[in-house]
Amino acid sequence: MNIKRIIDVAKGESEADLLLCNAKVFNVFTKEIIHADVAIVDGIIAGVGQYIDKCAKEIIDLEGAFLVPGFINAHCHVESSMVVPERYCQEELRHGVTTLVTDPHEIANVLGLDGILYMLGASENAPVNYFVQLPSCVPATCFEHAGATLRAEDLLTLKNHPRVLGLGEMMDYPGVLSADTFIMKKLEAFQDMIIDGHAPGLTGCRLQAYTACGIRTDHESSTASEALEKLRAGMAVLVRQGSASRNLKEIISGVLKAQVDTRNLAFCTDDKHLSDIRREGTIRQNLKMAVALGLDSLTALQIATWNAAQIYKLKNIGAIAPGYQADLVILKDLSEFHISAVYKDGCLMVKEGKLLQQKPDSFATGAICDTVNLPPVEEKDLILPDWDRLPVIRIHSGEIITSKEWVKKAEVPDRIADGSLRKVVVIERHHATGNIGVGLIAGYGLHHGAVATTVAHDSHNLIVVGDNNDDILFAIQVIKEMKGGYCLVKDGKDVGSLPLRVGGLMSDVPVEEFLTALDDMLKKAADLGVSPGIDPFITLSFIALPVIPSIRLTDCGMFDVDRFSMFDHCSEKEQ
Amino acid sequence: MNIKRIIDVAKGESEADLLLCNAKVFNVFTKEIIHADVAIVDGIIAGVGQYIDKCAKEIIDLEGAFLVPGFINAHCHVESSMVVPERYCQEELRHGVTTLVTDPHEIANVLGLDGILYMLGASENAPVNYFVQLPSCVPATCFEHAGATLRAEDLLTLKNHPRVLGLGEMMDYPGVLSADTFIMKKLEAFQDMIIDGHAPGLTGCRLQAYTACGIRTDHESSTASEALEKLRAGMAVLVRQGSASRNLKEIISGVLKAQVDTRNLAFCTDDKHLSDIRREGTIRQNLKMAVALGLDSLTALQIATWNAAQIYKLKNIGAIAPGYQADLVILKDLSEFHISAVYKDGCLMVKEGKLLQQKPDSFATGAICDTVNLPPVEEKDLILPDWDRLPVIRIHSGEIITSKEWVKKAEVPDRIADGSLRKVVVIERHHATGNIGVGLIAGYGLHHGAVATTVAHDSHNLIVVGDNNDDILFAIQVIKEMKGGYCLVKDGKDVGSLPLRVGGLMSDVPVEEFLTALDDMLKKAADLGVSPGIDPFITLSFIALPVIPSIRLTDCGMFDVDRFSMFDHCSEKEQ
Repeated sequence: MNIKRIIDVAKGESEADLLLCNAKVFNVFTKEIIHADVAIVDGIIAGVGQYIDKCAKEIIDLEGAFLVPGFINAHCHVESSMVVPERYCQEELRHGVTTLVTDPHEIANVLGLDGILYMLGASENAPVNYFVQLPSCVPATCFEHAGATLRAEDLLTLKNHPRVLGLGEMMDYPGVLSADTFIMKKLEAFQDMIIDGHAPGLTGCRLQAYTACGIRTDHESSTASEALEKLRAGMAVLVRQGSASRNLKEIISGVLKAQVDTRNLAFCTDDKHLSDIRREGTIRQNLKMAVALGLDSLTALQIATWNAAQIYKLKNIGAIAPGYQADLVILKDLSEFHISAVYKDGCLMVKEGKLLQQKPDSFATGAICDTVNLPPVEEKDLILPDWDRLPVIRIHSGEIITSKEWVKKAEVPDRIADGSLRKVVVIERHHATGNIGVGLIAGYGLHHGAVATTVAHDSHNLIVVGDNNDDILFAIQVIKEMKGGYCLVKDGKDVGSLPLRVGGLMSDVPVEEFLTALDDMLKKAADLGVSPGIDPFITLSFIALPVIPSIRLTDCGMFDVDRFSMFDHCSEKEQ
Repeated sequence: MNIKRIIDVAKGESEADLLLCNAKVFNVFTKEIIHADVAIVDGIIAGVGQYIDKCAKEIIDLEGAFLVPGFINAHCHVESSMVVPERYCQEELRHGVTTLVTDPHEIANVLGLDGILYMLGASENAPVNYFVQLPSCVPATCFEHAGATLRAEDLLTLKNHPRVLGLGEMMDYPGVLSADTFIMKKLEAFQDMIIDGHAPGLTGCRLQAYTACGIRTDHESSTASEALEKLRAGMAVLVRQGSASRNLKEIISGVLKAQVDTRNLAFCTDDKHLSDIRREGTIRQNLKMAVALGLDSLTALQIATWNAAQIYKLKNIGAIAPGYQADLVILKDLSEFHISAVYKDGCLMVKEGKLLQQKPDSFATGAICDTVNLPPVEEKDLILPDWDRLPVIRIHSGEIITSKEWVKKAEVPDRIADGSLRKVVVIERHHATGNIGVGLIAGYGLHHGAVATTVAHDSHNLIVVGDNNDDILFAIQVIKEMKGGYCLVKDGKDVGSLPLRVGGLMSDVPVEEFLTALDDMLKKAADLGVSPGIDPFITLSFIALPVIPSIRLTDCGMFDVDRFSMFDHCSEKEQ
């Protein structure tokens, strides 16, 4: 930053790189719209005011359009888009987001620190400000095997990275409340930075205890009262509108009703699929919904910009003022938030939805593309436990919560034959340990085939579902050869595959190409008989997540979430 | 901080040190009053909510009184109180202030880094949070000689001190705007911290340029439009109500009228005399006035607490919430802000205006008490310049601005005899360089005597005024022997003296004793014939400040502020 150059441009005594004239500028500090010009040099806003008579390399007359700071997505997992950071950032940028606070929790479960370093490297030249919160809970539980374990000492090696803001969402709130030694070490190590929370439904004294540890954000509120209690406890409430979790309506309605101060609110998506982002954007959608609910547009814009910057202590981001980054969005209106153009560091990046400056493609190479390490798997490894009665994972359309059923082992062949049960297998895929969990699933559909994925929260082991062992074994082989991704097998043939070669989680092909391929896979899965209303891959990806009720399958076997322990041959009697 | 202990108390499973029950708690985040109990352990708030049935070492029923966070004085010069930090902090605490952002600019002009280190040391065990902004402009100008010069390299040695927040008020705004190399170095060195501004009247492009350098606070606004322009430029406006500069009414009225967001406002005093603080407090007075002007009480309290903490990025300060310091004020009402009690780190420190926990006295010793280093001064050194006509400093009752007059040299003896002129002398007192400025002052009064002070902004040289050389020389001798302070001489006799042995600026006697002595000095000065409406010492202390119009005297001689240059024998012709 050449301060002298900025001073000279601000004074109007030196040529600006860019002059945006005649704009309705949103002032985040006073919450006003002010008619002004904006002078930009070296990617920095030098001055806001009367510059129309000053010289500049480029002068653009905004003809009274709204000029607002670039939006901030205060909490997101890039991996959930299934494309690499380079691709993801372009998509966010198209919809006005110029700053991301990310938590590379998924890739960290695959590759630990190397995974985080990959995300930092891949976003080094991203067309957005890309910040990282260090994943605090890898692995998520002790009932499964992830690719890595991250201790406080490991996280500390990245603490001073210029784009690391602090510690990512502390999901293990039972561990916090019981003052688990390993968790205390992590919390103590990051007291001087931002510590994100993740405490769905936590309330009363327990919420106070959780917050007292310095955990000052939360994106899990799903009701107005939960959000208000967290705000009152001093937490920033990140209002989430993702693909699965959609909390904005509840929270914003509650905040409006309670008429509380909004400055500790920010917007986020947490997990949002690429197809949803492509269709409606991220923070733009939060803005639009909030205003439709009755929030005034300027307060909504504060939430989408400066509030998030304040919460994450982002210097020179989130406002249109001298010394700030020239990250700007030109809006046609303040209700639908139609975007005319997006500037990043003073460069025009997006015009009418079209990306103008494609950064050169990055091709991931090395260890990050070689994370699928499977043991040899044979038919004998796919045998169900030798118990009289077996637990069954019952899935439901449009939900990730499962329910528990039981079946007599002797009836299983008939139930598979009549299509009401399918076999599901989770195979540890990071270190070829040979850990394999085998179980039963009901409600999935699928005939004469198998479906497999290496995206499986949070440990991202390989999950395969099928109605016969041959197709299951073949699907494992396909996944192994393509080094991660989705695959569909029917009658011993590979009928469709989508490689996710980066960590087994992400693709690096262009966004359009990826979305077309994904759409094709969904259609083919339907042809295979996967039940309507069930997403063939996303449903599977939550089958191994032992923190969501009621029954799951990990590489260690069937897991009873309600009792928070593994099933065994005695389980059925205890029910 | 023992996190486990705090968690256990928050959960209600372990004994709190203190339980404040049945309070109307001010929630800074939501701007609400909430009926709750507050559980405190190890000086930290563990939880806010229903704790009345939990155990604690001490339980206090607040019977529905208001409980608010301790106030924050966002910008003050402790030296202006003329007592050492230990004494000053006690006085602030009595009036509900638990956090100070100080700028040790005065002592730094006397002793440089050693002066700053003295203030940091003296406040090490202060009963308030005592933060320091490193003085950016020492010396203030090049037309005088201070005790020290502070360059960027010097300031950097203290940058990582845990109580240093950044760079103090950048008074040399012409230097900023001309991108002076030494100033740019200082600004660059502190870009990652808070940089305070000082830009009275700066507007338009020049204000944009000043702010673009990362200078993000200002306490010099004296009109509503100035404050609004600074807020819009992204500056935090520190609303000042000091002894001399009283800007609160203008700014708060303007903010109310414009209905802008208030979150970038904080309260400060800048310079406030001890007698004024004793009478009305500091931030409490700001609160009271703001509410009387029509600002709602809760917004005023946000300004006095959390806003300041946010602006200065003070972690765990400024709110009543889990994990925050237990710095609390119990208020009887929200209009007059009558204080019942003040807690610091969970300890009851003040009750009904009475300090309960006197920290042990500290006695300053060493170099800090030996800062008056005067050369031998004789009658021949007190000769006026040999010009036909001489400039005269005309002072006015209740103002620090002076006006310029001229007198024929030949007429000076008569004018001194008739009492309309007095001689004024400024002597460099840090390094005995022998620099002496001699001039004339009108409007001071005083008969057959001399008045001297070592408090003289900003270089703090020795200033003496008198109507005869003998008394002037004797006053110099008295100051020399007492190593700094105020003194009054009449007819060759020391008729009153007030030692300020710490840096020649501050006293370390107890507050009551100091105020009585000061009052006595003021009465005696009046007896000496100092004009009514003229503060005998404070008026003198601004005589050498070359940045305030229109005419000053430094140790280099008479200074024309309007032309920003020294007077010489040609000056009169140029007028």
